[in-house]
Amino acid sequence: MEFDFFKTFSINLDLAVEAREVVRGKTGQEIPGAQVSTEKYDQAEVTIVHIMDEKAATIMGKPIGKYITIEAPAIRENNGRAHKDITEVLSQQLTKLFKISMESNVLVVGLGNWNATPDALGPKVVEQTLVTRHLFNYAPQELQGGMRPVSALAPGVLGTTGIETAEIIKGAVDRIKPDLVIAIDSLAARNVTRIATTIQMADTGVNPGSGIGNQRMGINQETLGCPVIAIGVPTVVNAAFICKDALDSYLKQTGNYVTQQEQMDPNVKQAIENVLNPFGGDLTVTPKEVDILIDTTAQIVSGGISMSLHPGISSEDYAFYLH
Amino acid sequence: MEFDFFKTFSINLDLAVEAREVVRGKTGQEIPGAQVSTEKYDQAEVTIVHIMDEKAATIMGKPIGKYITIEAPAIRENNGRAHKDITEVLSQQLTKLFKISMESNVLVVGLGNWNATPDALGPKVVEQTLVTRHLFNYAPQELQGGMRPVSALAPGVLGTTGIETAEIIKGAVDRIKPDLVIAIDSLAARNVTRIATTIQMADTGVNPGSGIGNQRMGINQETLGCPVIAIGVPTVVNAAFICKDALDSYLKQTGNYVTQQEQMDPNVKQAIENVLNPFGGDLTVTPKEVDILIDTTAQIVSGGISMSLHPGISSEDYAFYLH
Amino acid sequence: MEFDFFKTFSINLDLAVEAREVVRGKTGQEIPGAQVSTEKYDQAEVTIVHIMDEKAATIMGKPIGKYITIEAPAIRENNGRAHKDITEVLSQQLTKLFKISMESNVLVVGLGNWNATPDALGPKVVEQTLVTRHLFNYAPQELQGGMRPVSALAPGVLGTTGIETAEIIKGAVDRIKPDLVIAIDSLAARNVTRIATTIQMADTGVNPGSGIGNQRMGINQETLGCPVIAIGVPTVVNAAFICKDALDSYLKQTGNYVTQQEQMDPNVKQAIENVLNPFGGDLTVTPKEVDILIDTTAQIVSGGISMSLHPGISSEDYAFYLH
Amino acid sequence: MEFDFFKTFSINLDLAVEAREVVRGKTGQEIPGAQVSTEKYDQAEVTIVHIMDEKAATIMGKPIGKYITIEAPAIRENNGRAHKDITEVLSQQLTKLFKISMESNVLVVGLGNWNATPDALGPKVVEQTLVTRHLFNYAPQELQGGMRPVSALAPGVLGTTGIETAEIIKGAVDRIKPDLVIAIDSLAARNVTRIATTIQMADTGVNPGSGIGNQRMGINQETLGCPVIAIGVPTVVNAAFICKDALDSYLKQTGNYVTQQEQMDPNVKQAIENVLNPFGGDLTVTPKEVDILIDTTAQIVSGGISMSLHPGISSEDYAFYLH
Repeated sequence: MEFDFFKTFSINLDLAVEAREVVRGKTGQEIPGAQVSTEKYDQAEVTIVHIMDEKAATIMGKPIGKYITIEAPAIRENNGRAHKDITEVLSQQLTKLFKISMESNVLVVGLGNWNATPDALGPKVVEQTLVTRHLFNYAPQELQGGMRPVSALAPGVLGTTGIETAEIIKGAVDRIKPDLVIAIDSLAARNVTRIATTIQMADTGVNPGSGIGNQRMGINQETLGCPVIAIGVPTVVNAAFICKDALDSYLKQTGNYVTQQEQMDPNVKQAIENVLNPFGGDLTVTPKEVDILIDTTAQIVSGGISMSLHPGISSEDYAFYLH
Repeated sequence: MEFDFFKTFSINLDLAVEAREVVRGKTGQEIPGAQVSTEKYDQAEVTIVHIMDEKAATIMGKPIGKYITIEAPAIRENNGRAHKDITEVLSQQLTKLFKISMESNVLVVGLGNWNATPDALGPKVVEQTLVTRHLFNYAPQELQGGMRPVSALAPGVLGTTGIETAEIIKGAVDRIKPDLVIAIDSLAARNVTRIATTIQMADTGVNPGSGIGNQRMGINQETLGCPVIAIGVPTVVNAAFICKDALDSYLKQTGNYVTQQEQMDPNVKQAIENVLNPFGGDLTVTPKEVDILIDTTAQIVSGGISMSLHPGISSEDYAFYLH
Repeated sequence: MEFDFFKTFSINLDLAVEAREVVRGKTGQEIPGAQVSTEKYDQAEVTIVHIMDEKAATIMGKPIGKYITIEAPAIRENNGRAHKDITEVLSQQLTKLFKISMESNVLVVGLGNWNATPDALGPKVVEQTLVTRHLFNYAPQELQGGMRPVSALAPGVLGTTGIETAEIIKGAVDRIKPDLVIAIDSLAARNVTRIATTIQMADTGVNPGSGIGNQRMGINQETLGCPVIAIGVPTVVNAAFICKDALDSYLKQTGNYVTQQEQMDPNVKQAIENVLNPFGGDLTVTPKEVDILIDTTAQIVSGGISMSLHPGISSEDYAFYLH
Repeated sequence: MEFDFFKTFSINLDLAVEAREVVRGKTGQEIPGAQVSTEKYDQAEVTIVHIMDEKAATIMGKPIGKYITIEAPAIRENNGRAHKDITEVLSQQLTKLFKISMESNVLVVGLGNWNATPDALGPKVVEQTLVTRHLFNYAPQELQGGMRPVSALAPGVLGTTGIETAEIIKGAVDRIKPDLVIAIDSLAARNVTRIATTIQMADTGVNPGSGIGNQRMGINQETLGCPVIAIGVPTVVNAAFICKDALDSYLKQTGNYVTQQEQMDPNVKQAIENVLNPFGGDLTVTPKEVDILIDTTAQIVSGGISMSLHPGISSEDYAFYLH
């Protein structure tokens, strides 16, 4: 299998903020049909990109919907207090994306491969999710105060199960009929600085071609029949982008960089292909300490989800509900 | 939650051979409507109990169908050669239970809780199952020689997912429509000598109340709409049975044991309840080395399944397809 | 291997409070040379047994030292707030057992077998321990405020490594020369109600024959050359005790129980042996939900250790330093 | 922490065959003081580089000793039969590297980080190693036939334990005094085609700066006091090399590549630094399917070790001794 250059560089970017950067880099102006606002917190900067019409969706290469991006470099630091702050920001922002009653059933889905660290975010979040759906049948009324019925599933990946992930989820959704699905996935970023510093939440669900595992079937309202919020964290960058960046940097230094080009320089294209062909383009770049970064982000994401879904649990106590 | 004495002692026994022993112990004769045959191998003794009509099913407390039991004490020994022999016996016996073409889709389901060692057999078998369904879309024809399209799923348990296990399986089956489901589960035995020495295969599927996790909904042809083979290995004994055995043994020694009694001695009943109440009867007995026993049985069961489903793989090579 | 009745019933009890109960049950009075005091908290009752001389040590079957026992039934409940309270009690009580400066090196050792759930407490605590020793060489001074240099090791078990656990620990201690070792272990209780409700801390270290794994070599000041605090939580009961309890209960009901007997009734002894012989006495009793209980206790123990060793971390934030 | 360009490009290459390629690429001729021979098998090509004197060691940047490299692209294929063949080649080649009696104690050490997939090879091999040392005290004589006493240790990594890995190993070696240590490690290759296709065995042990984790202290005869065989498999490439390759490829195409240069083109150097600075050079490149590659290589390496150390186990049966 050869590296498919065209596919790698033409795929829609997982992060809306990166898509926006690319578009603005090319056009030098904000995208019509897309509203952008920002909020600042001690440990996080929040950017809300609202893609409002089909035209903006086409330009951005992403479906119509709301994309909330939390940029928080402190995730990479060994700083528990900062992580707590970021968890609370995530919880508040996530709450803005859904409108369901306290009785509504929620299904949390952890996409990705348990056995490959950079792809393990989804399953790790599921493992730490406060699952309560089964308690609602048995538990005394008072235990349920401030909690919603939540179930959780880590369906694995095609290579391990032999089953398209979306099929397993669709099957479960057809049976348990949740009012909301929250799907967590590892993303591929365009830029290494995004790895484990950026968290994206979107009310668009997970769409074909996105995530590390590159879903082939969407996990969204259209396929599942209920609202789907996607939470993604970049954990890798495709090796092609690193090569491209190194080549661009070289060309800039030597004064040969051509901006605004419509097509990539064929020599640049060929150089990247030469390097990546042996693994068919499936080479990813990760920081060495990816295991720690995944652990921290899984804790922040699962914590934010639990606080958002179970408002009865205080931010002091919720950590004791996770494992 | 109090220990429910009645429930514990009245539940149908997971093992057909144990049910048969109990019935014969009471009646002193073979059960009408049940055919029994045995086969002997170097490392294993095989008993095939065929429950043929509803009357026998009621007496045995188990559905109509074929139950193949492999008794192989060498599973507990550190003896690779013996384990290989037992794997081959299992493969041959399993093959007798299904009649499907080489093109038939098979779904292997690992029931049980990954995080609790005695209940982890199912998920461990799934982890080692040679999954091929996704390869049939991509792989060159020659790679598929002698292999069937196999998928595998470890759906977790209610306490972890908040979803009834059978619901997840039913959902997946509705989507991928397998021709055969093989479900692996940890069983509870009546007798400690059964732990990790006995493997039961049955064409009846998994029925409510069986297994360590005590499924509430069946995983069988009726619920899934396709044939279901259940493979079970006892890994625990309910603590109530150990207490009962100790009391019976004492009564026999002191000459106070009453055979053939219709009802249990109320003092015996009360004594067991006193001991088990604090954990509501959910106390199980396992050998200390349960982790090693589960590893060995998982290897034997997954090996037997792979050899049976993929006849193109020789018994010399198949181990190199497992991980 | 036959069940060794004598060994099972003569081994020293892991829990000092159980040893005290047994002695008081026999003699009807407090043990001379042993001081006992209690403290009450919302979610926990603390008993401090101070064995002060050799005579008391012999009577109790436990070395001279301080044993702090926290009894907290709420550990078994799904109650995050209660778990937080218990963690704080543990942290305060643990702090009483050592007297070291903020610069002192501490080694946390997790005894037990990662792969067998009831024996996995030690390794799970190590996994969640806030390890800082390596940071002291690199981190800016301000990061170290209120933290001690802590390292952590889960040496595995003899059956997996082929090496006596205490040998690996002794080797590491000889190299890194800690000022204090804290060793965490799963214990066997005499009574099922103790499972996952009782936490014992002792300044005596871990002594031969104790713990589920039954250490053969001590992990204490004598063998390691530095103070050793042992933290243990009962996670199993030997099946022999369950049988004995059922028999005693039966005998009491039928009016045949003889108190204060010097020797066990030979018929009782024989009955227990008959039941347990097939597994040589290595049968243990655990609650079904042992995985959840171990997770909760691991979180409480690791949390208590981290708060105690790193006073600079507030009880609100420390959970964000664990993973 | 900035990316240290000099350090990355000046470190000794982990693979002797790559070091040889580099030297020959520069000088166009074989290295004096280094003997090279090759052997061909169906599924593997074996290159034995014998560095015989200090001069050759300096040129190659690797210590005096024997380096056996197995190149076997079929490791990446789903081909059990090929994997079996490669395992046998590995076993035979490994046997050439040591000369110990059947009574000799062997310690297998798995270096690396269990939680980070590309660094998990060592711990995975240890998990599958047939450990027998403890059996020699208990097992009947006949069980020991054709087996050596083997122990195994996965000491973890500095970031997890707070202890330099070599310290833990040194401590254990001082206690159990093995006659031979076999240390398994994940390596960083210069070239992506090496990932999971090349296995290197060397009688030099593991030396500072090598492996993904970049040991700071050697694990060799000098530090441990007994012979040390290192087995390494490349699982990553430093991202700097991918960038360098892309730049070289571009320069070649555009006719600007300068061969045999003493110093790297400063623009190339700067371009790479610009890209890698955000993660201080600790970015690694891995194939997406790294989890499967690690599983396969772990099985091959542990199988080869077991067959080599325990000649009494046939190649048909040994897989049944692994888990």
